[in-house]
This record gives sequence, structure tokens and C-alpha cells, in this order.
Amino acid sequence: MRDVNSPLIPLVDAEIPERCDAARNRKLLLDAAADLVAERGVDAVTMEAVAAKAGVGKGTVFRRFGSRSGLMNALLDHTERELQHAFMFGPPPLGPDAPPLVRLIAFGRARLDMVTVQGDVLRAAEGSPEFRYSGPARAVSLRHIVTLLHDAGVDGDVDLLAVVLLAALEAGLVLHQIRALGISPERIADNWEDLAHRITRTGPGVP
Amino acid sequence: MRDVNSPLIPLVDAEIPERCDAARNRKLLLDAAADLVAERGVDAVTMEAVAAKAGVGKGTVFRRFGSRSGLMNALLDHTERELQHAFMFGPPPLGPDAPPLVRLIAFGRARLDMVTVQGDVLRAAEGSPEFRYSGPARAVSLRHIVTLLHDAGVDGDVDLLAVVLLAALEAGLVLHQIRALGISPERIADNWEDLAHRITRTGPGVP
Repeated sequence: MRDVNSPLIPLVDAEIPERCDAARNRKLLLDAAADLVAERGVDAVTMEAVAAKAGVGKGTVFRRFGSRSGLMNALLDHTERELQHAFMFGPPPLGPDAPPLVRLIAFGRARLDMVTVQGDVLRAAEGSPEFRYSGPARAVSLRHIVTLLHDAGVDGDVDLLAVVLLAALEAGLVLHQIRALGISPERIADNWEDLAHRITRTGPGVP
Repeated sequence: MRDVNSPLIPLVDAEIPERCDAARNRKLLLDAAADLVAERGVDAVTMEAVAAKAGVGKGTVFRRFGSRSGLMNALLDHTERELQHAFMFGPPPLGPDAPPLVRLIAFGRARLDMVTVQGDVLRAAEGSPEFRYSGPARAVSLRHIVTLLHDAGVDGDVDLLAVVLLAALEAGLVLHQIRALGISPERIADNWEDLAHRITRTGPGVP
């Protein structure tokens, strides 16, 4: 479970200042960890492997993150922050210059990409019932979807429709579809796009 | 967690035969337990309270269910079976004589009623990650929704749309909305109805 007292989303601009080299070091280690997840899966992310990949001593990784669990939580935060930054300030299709439905589709696709790469970390974070629905990252995602549904002119109960949309992206559910049912990530992403059209009552060719 | 080896849904007609008085006794106890949940919440369901309510000795309840956890699992099975029977063989709007969208709306409303009454039992059953998405009762619900979407002429990826619809009814999520967010069960049920219309691309007034 993540430390909810850490400098977390939605406090994008309220991070505790780090010395420049410390911040660079942290980013180096988290990028190495993210690469390991993408290349060899989450089980390959050990303190030793991250140290080797980043070209630092193992002690540096331990001093920075304390434990593998601390590292995984930091990695999840790091990825959440990057996605948040992309949909708040980034270029289209995620960012504010794209139409709301385009952004909604891109948001779901981006989150599904995260799930397939970092699914186990996300699922572990969702594991605790209180956390599953109360994490700050989830609140930011939910608020983003609500805003997009409003902007798209959806006339229903947008707060609850957003809850349903976000439930479709939940790591545990997505991993179950991929691993237990053998459904491809592409098919899940295509269904997300169709779902976004249905919820906003638009045609598939009319974003 | 439920005993997945028990005579379970979808084996409606494959129950291990019970002697008639034993079956009657079991039903008497489970009806008493269901009444207790409805009247005073799930925490009120103790072996003693069920015995008192059913007018039998406490030993009878222990012999039948072994433990409170065994009782709660049996109660969940009992309720799942009743719902399954209603949508497979019962009268409209749940049963086969109603149009598919009407049945879909009624199914969601019935399941939401179950969640608000027996939510803690359901949530405990959903608690284990493997069980959450692999229980036999969930498979039956999923297949039912898929059939209804087919019958309603939905042209999308009905298997995955059904997964999303069922996710909206998940006990943990529904309880979070009711208890943590203070959203009324009526509002959640109304949103379900709207959602069913959106997914099947029908108007709210055109079931």
C-alpha cells in the first residue's frame, strides 16, 4: 500500500524540494525500474536489478527507497504523476487542446497501457479495500473524467457515469481479462473507445 | 471466501439431494438469516441470533453451517440462487417474458438491492483477487448480461461491454459509493438504468 502522506498527486506543484542531484538520482532509479517492468515484468524489479540497470551501488537504492515495496510505491507515484501531467498540461490527444471525447479515449488508452506494464504494482495498491477507492490518484482520475463528460455535454449523472468508466480501467479487472481470459490489450482498449462513445452518446466515427 | 466445491450456481438442477426435512430446516435458517440482515444489518447475524429467530437451538445452526463464515457463505449462495432462478425462470421484468433491455435494467436493480442488503457478505466474497472475478455466480451473471446485450441487438464487443456493466454492480464499489460518498441506492439504480440505455444505444423512454 502506498504511503498516503507522501508528496502525492494531486499536489503536482507541491513536491518537497529535493536537491538537484538527489532528484536526478531518484529519476534515474525510477526510470531504470520502469524499464525493467516494461522489458521483463514486475517480478524482475529487485533492488539489485535496479541498481545494476542504473549503474549505481545497491546501497544507493536501499538508502533512497528503503525496501522493494518502497521502490514499487515510488514507481507507481512516478507513473501516475507523468500521466497526470500529460492530461493536465501535455499535448493532444491527452492534453487540454483536444476535444473532450478525444481526451477521454486517450486517457483510457493511456491508463490501460499503464495497467499492462505496471499492473501488478497497481493491483497491489488496489488490494486494500479502503485504498482501492480512496487513493488520491484515483480521485484525480475521477475528477478528470467528470470534467471531460461535462465538457462533452453529457446530460446524465456524470459523477456516477465517471465511476463506471473508471471501474472499467481498474487494474485487477483488466489483468483478469488479459491473464485469465486471454483477451488482448488492444481489444480492451478498442472496447474502451466504443464505451466512451456510448456513454457520451456519440457515433464511433464522430469524436 | 465461499467454498467453491459446494453445490453452487450454475448447477441449479444439480444440487446434492437433501432429505426433505433437512432442506426445509436449511431454508428456515437461511430465511431467518436473510431477515436479520434486512432488519438489522449483517453484523446482527450471529449463530445465536439466527437460532433464536428461527426458533431452534444454537446447536442446530452450528451443525448445519459449522461457523458464522459458513453461514454467511450459505446465505450468499441462497440469495444468488434466488436471483438466478428469478431471471432464468421468473416473471417479468426479470424473467424471459420481458424485452431484453427491461430485463437488463431489472437485473441490475435486483443485484443492487442485494448489495445494499447483503453487501458485506458479497464484499467479503469479492475480497480474494482470484475469487473476485472467477466465482461461479459471477460467471452466471456475466453470461446473462451477454445474452441480454445480444438479444437487444447491441453491435459492439458484447463480451467486454458486459464486463463493464457487471463492474458497475460490484459490491465493493457500490458500498463505497453508498457509505463513503453518501450516494443514495436510488441514485445508483437510476444511473444503472441510464447506463443500460447508453450501452444499448436506446433512449431513456424507449425500453
